[in-house]
Amino acid sequence: MRMLRGMCLWLLAAMVLAPVARAEDGYRLWLRYDALSAQRAGAVAQRAASITGPDRPSAVVASAISELQRGLGGMLAREIPAGTQISAGTVILANPSVQARLGIDLPLSDLGAEGYLLRSMTLDGKPVTVVAANGDAGLLYGAFALLEHIQRGLPIDEMNMRSAPKLQLRVLDHWDNLDGSVERGYAGQSIWNWWTLPEHVDPRLVDYARANASIGINGAVLNNVNASALSLTPRYIAKAAAIADTLRPWGMKVYLSARFSAPIELGGLDTADPLDPEVAAWWKAKADEIYASIPDFGGFLVKANSEGQPGPQDYHRSHAEGANMLAAAVAPHGGIVMWRAFVYSAEDATDRAKQAYAEFKPLDGTFADNVLLQVKNGPIDFQPREPFHPLFGAMPETPLMMEFQITKEYLGQATHLVYLGPLWEEVLEADTRRHGEGATVAKVIEGRYGAHKLTGMAGVANIGDDRDWTGSTFNQANWFAFGRMAWNPQSSARNIAVEWAELTFGPRDDVTRTVLDMMMTSREAVVNYMTPLGLAHQMATGHHYGPGPWVSDLGRPEWNPAYYNRADKDGIGFDRTASGSNAIAQYAPPVAKEFGDLAAVPDRDLLWFHHLAWDYRMRSGETLWQSLLDHYQTGVEQVQAMERQWQSLKGDIDPRRFAKTADFLRIQEKEAKWWRDASVLYWESVSGKRAPEGYPEPAHDLDYYKALRFPNAPGH
Amino acid sequence: MRMLRGMCLWLLAAMVLAPVARAEDGYRLWLRYDALSAQRAGAVAQRAASITGPDRPSAVVASAISELQRGLGGMLAREIPAGTQISAGTVILANPSVQARLGIDLPLSDLGAEGYLLRSMTLDGKPVTVVAANGDAGLLYGAFALLEHIQRGLPIDEMNMRSAPKLQLRVLDHWDNLDGSVERGYAGQSIWNWWTLPEHVDPRLVDYARANASIGINGAVLNNVNASALSLTPRYIAKAAAIADTLRPWGMKVYLSARFSAPIELGGLDTADPLDPEVAAWWKAKADEIYASIPDFGGFLVKANSEGQPGPQDYHRSHAEGANMLAAAVAPHGGIVMWRAFVYSAEDATDRAKQAYAEFKPLDGTFADNVLLQVKNGPIDFQPREPFHPLFGAMPETPLMMEFQITKEYLGQATHLVYLGPLWEEVLEADTRRHGEGATVAKVIEGRYGAHKLTGMAGVANIGDDRDWTGSTFNQANWFAFGRMAWNPQSSARNIAVEWAELTFGPRDDVTRTVLDMMMTSREAVVNYMTPLGLAHQMATGHHYGPGPWVSDLGRPEWNPAYYNRADKDGIGFDRTASGSNAIAQYAPPVAKEFGDLAAVPDRDLLWFHHLAWDYRMRSGETLWQSLLDHYQTGVEQVQAMERQWQSLKGDIDPRRFAKTADFLRIQEKEAKWWRDASVLYWESVSGKRAPEGYPEPAHDLDYYKALRFPNAPGH
Repeated sequence: MRMLRGMCLWLLAAMVLAPVARAEDGYRLWLRYDALSAQRAGAVAQRAASITGPDRPSAVVASAISELQRGLGGMLAREIPAGTQISAGTVILANPSVQARLGIDLPLSDLGAEGYLLRSMTLDGKPVTVVAANGDAGLLYGAFALLEHIQRGLPIDEMNMRSAPKLQLRVLDHWDNLDGSVERGYAGQSIWNWWTLPEHVDPRLVDYARANASIGINGAVLNNVNASALSLTPRYIAKAAAIADTLRPWGMKVYLSARFSAPIELGGLDTADPLDPEVAAWWKAKADEIYASIPDFGGFLVKANSEGQPGPQDYHRSHAEGANMLAAAVAPHGGIVMWRAFVYSAEDATDRAKQAYAEFKPLDGTFADNVLLQVKNGPIDFQPREPFHPLFGAMPETPLMMEFQITKEYLGQATHLVYLGPLWEEVLEADTRRHGEGATVAKVIEGRYGAHKLTGMAGVANIGDDRDWTGSTFNQANWFAFGRMAWNPQSSARNIAVEWAELTFGPRDDVTRTVLDMMMTSREAVVNYMTPLGLAHQMATGHHYGPGPWVSDLGRPEWNPAYYNRADKDGIGFDRTASGSNAIAQYAPPVAKEFGDLAAVPDRDLLWFHHLAWDYRMRSGETLWQSLLDHYQTGVEQVQAMERQWQSLKGDIDPRRFAKTADFLRIQEKEAKWWRDASVLYWESVSGKRAPEGYPEPAHDLDYYKALRFPNAPGH
Repeated sequence: MRMLRGMCLWLLAAMVLAPVARAEDGYRLWLRYDALSAQRAGAVAQRAASITGPDRPSAVVASAISELQRGLGGMLAREIPAGTQISAGTVILANPSVQARLGIDLPLSDLGAEGYLLRSMTLDGKPVTVVAANGDAGLLYGAFALLEHIQRGLPIDEMNMRSAPKLQLRVLDHWDNLDGSVERGYAGQSIWNWWTLPEHVDPRLVDYARANASIGINGAVLNNVNASALSLTPRYIAKAAAIADTLRPWGMKVYLSARFSAPIELGGLDTADPLDPEVAAWWKAKADEIYASIPDFGGFLVKANSEGQPGPQDYHRSHAEGANMLAAAVAPHGGIVMWRAFVYSAEDATDRAKQAYAEFKPLDGTFADNVLLQVKNGPIDFQPREPFHPLFGAMPETPLMMEFQITKEYLGQATHLVYLGPLWEEVLEADTRRHGEGATVAKVIEGRYGAHKLTGMAGVANIGDDRDWTGSTFNQANWFAFGRMAWNPQSSARNIAVEWAELTFGPRDDVTRTVLDMMMTSREAVVNYMTPLGLAHQMATGHHYGPGPWVSDLGRPEWNPAYYNRADKDGIGFDRTASGSNAIAQYAPPVAKEFGDLAAVPDRDLLWFHHLAWDYRMRSGETLWQSLLDHYQTGVEQVQAMERQWQSLKGDIDPRRFAKTADFLRIQEKEAKWWRDASVLYWESVSGKRAPEGYPEPAHDLDYYKALRFPNAPGH
């Protein structure tokens, strides 16, 4: 249509070509293995240019070898031989028998089955790099650690690193349906090609496994916790087995979400009562059937008696009775059961935040040894900010498995740039005060305070079949950070961000500094423009996209944002102190004291625990009303600052990833303003207060925002 | 888990690496531009190593330049300069003014606006290649033709080719919903990233446009014919405009499917009566609104009064009255209306095959000048085989636009290898006998027999966001073939297959020969194992996946496979002669005579037109029963032969595309047997006949096949 002037277009055409040809489309994630500079390649080749290892490598060790060949091959731009020879620059994958053969004696005793040690050595006068571990998985993780180290441009001459996971189960929960849709998925459809499995396994699944192995994730729950019984039919078990065969060489096990009523739906029984012998027998036979196809099947994840899902309470049985029945079915095979503590029953509670604790705390000590209770980080539901869940520390006889949500259901979904590391770190660092001071949530889930032996962390995956896996470049950081936090719950979110940025954009200090600053700001930004000062669950109905603080007409009180904000002409916030729901009593006394005390409670949790007058005077001297307004506007400004920062990287980032992030930041700015304007207008309408002169004018009136509908919002 | 023995694994790991690193994942389609051999590159560089063209290239010419740079750059492995200089080896994009400037006088008068001419010339003693055309689109298409020529290894020294499209509208119909799902889509979700448009345009859309331009497709209907009115709201018009901006530089226009009741749903009117002035005014305003955002908007596609869609008949108005009202709204902007003749009304007809003709034939001559009637190739619905639609040739005063289905709703869907070229060729070659002998369907849609000026062909797209676009390598051939047939409806399916195979797998005679043989067999194979001898619509309910000849309990007679097969103990087939529904009377008398005469009707259409006894003696001497059995088994054997042929190419095809096709052929073989076994068992059950000794035993009994359910079948 439009004629462009003169020769400039000729130049344009020539310039456009190059980036298209080598488009960085995000598929490679943090495993990019681009060729190093000649100087760096020379240095690396001194220590890592060939590979040797066990005489008879297992499939997992073969994966380590292939990854080293791929990674070193890419970075050194040459073929990497693998064989029995040791020469200068050989990487030695050294399990105990290799060490014995070579006469190396490295301290492996505290590394467990999955830990590793990287050590620069000289063998027979030859400089080599040893990746040592007790087990195959350790060799695999060590190989990835070595590749990461090289990608990040760190010195390779005097390596001496060791690392071992602090949690045993490091699991992604895929809320993937069998029709290919992903509940709360914002990155396309499920990566499981259910329809063409088991005959055809999408080669992408190998790359999925590689990515997970590179960050220590060792399990995947394949299907949605709102489970279809179909996933337990022979047809789908065969499909799951094909996935298991693909993930196994990368150290990963598969798990399935189990629908509690499957004995009725598939087995034709009249009941799913966990104490009914026929029901137990049905599950036992089903477990046997699964293990016949998947010998290392991990076990079941169960969402029971929550949001309409069937469960043991349908038969007046406890969660423990339900869990233990399933646990007995998988126990002979070494399987486990992950039982979710996210309950949201058919009865209205006084305070939804209290329900999980009320139901599960009394069951402490009654679960079978191979059951973990999977507890969300906060007592409500994956909000931009919640105080830690009061169950942490409160069930010493029960292994509590952390459940984080990697997909950003409540944090901007597809497009907002939000690095979740700080959110998770904040929870993991929280001191439960249940076992003296310093009994952080991290230490609780590490199992330091109980005799039970299982530990774990689950993350609700943000992965789909979008080319870049997670819908955006920065969403990849959340997958990465989850793996790191699951490996070591005491990891630093900031350090993880640095690692990720260097791997993703190349180790360039100026880029890393800017990206790091954006990431570390981003979570506070989303809290500010969505739900500042302890507000929660203000999102629109169903899809949770955009603001809906006015919604108060849904069937049950706790479905409504108004239930959570409790805003009226006198004030705002949820009184969870003794004068209100007394949810604070579920915390250890010193914690409850802090949360209940207006002089001590952190501002960030203020309205989570307290209902306060609009003119309540904050410790800062501002009124609550002023502070709320400030937070919304600060959130918008933080997004605008991220946009400027990203634009400052133009030319430093490849054009394709640059453009997509720039586009998404523009959407985020628009939506941050939408959140600010709609929220402030609503608070004005209930409080009778007005934002002061000079506060940004909303683009529309409140009725406009209330009338917005998004019938095709993704993930719902 | 499994220990592999000894050093073989080391070798394996080394071997696996290489293909993974340069995986051929199908994304590049037939535009691969791999580096040529040194010898060939040298020869090509003599004629095509730099580019020049108009002084002020339009956006479309800029696309031609960028594609030549990409293509020649890839094949010659060097940067291709573009500028004003002419030297040895320059490709000259020569519109009339460039020709005048250079003193070239090539015959362009019969090329129209989109045709092109490729000519090797010597200018000032320099060997050059001239791409000449009257218009920008012609230059673009010529550039692609040149690149194709080079990719196929054809001589480049003495080029003298000319080509011009025989149809004006060459359009893909995307049955894409606004939630990202694709009706009858088997290649993932919609490529339109509706949610993040218009702020973010997926770069994939540029590659989509390139692929279409390379085969002459110049339009896309963005949304499903079962349309949501939402697509006409400002929010979605802005999204469509962003797509239009992306496709425009590649010579493509966008169209929208219009929901006839939108004036009610969006406009708040009480009626959508096309003769109501308010309704007409609403559509006029809506058209103006669309054209304000999309100045070259193509127009509307409408499915009205069919399968529950609203339409003019709801107000006792004719299809022509409905179409003409919409046509008036877009006419001032140069837009058109494509009105579908696929009707399937709420009333039960005696024979569904007769309905479109009965409704539309009387309307000939009553449509506005900017309306095309879009007619499916056959009178039912995209079956593996149908006789041509009787409307072709029967409405001389109306432009009839062919509607083919590229996506394989009824032909094996996601996985079966079926090349549709022969199906389309068979229809296009059919002689309607409406305007003397030789009045083929192709000539009818070319507009040779009427005064109207619009011509076109629509293909229901098989494109999704799967990495290889169409779900399989061979499905890409159907997209390609559709473009070729739309450019020239008299194209040879075999020649198109050769072109595609050479572009897709490289120009190697042995590979091409084998691939060609598979492709040219494949359509007859699917007819044989699904619906031989003129049977149709035997697919299971709703999703149309797998056999369901027994289904007879659906709400309306013509929803049931049993309606179409009419099998009972006495015989099988649909009597459409004078003794039956007399559908043959809708054809020209010589055609009706042939179809009605058992001595003349082709075997392939036998049971489409005749109900015959199981023991009816075929012209071959076999009984009908024996012939049916033979056809099913032949279909299975043809698939098995394709599997063997494909396996013979192992090593000649890159591992990734090889493996996926091999996997899918395995599925196809399994499903061909399923079709054979389930169909034969059912015919046995109604006829009382038995397959002879030695005929393959079915793996299960009939009840097993009847009980199969596929709740997560894609595309539905």
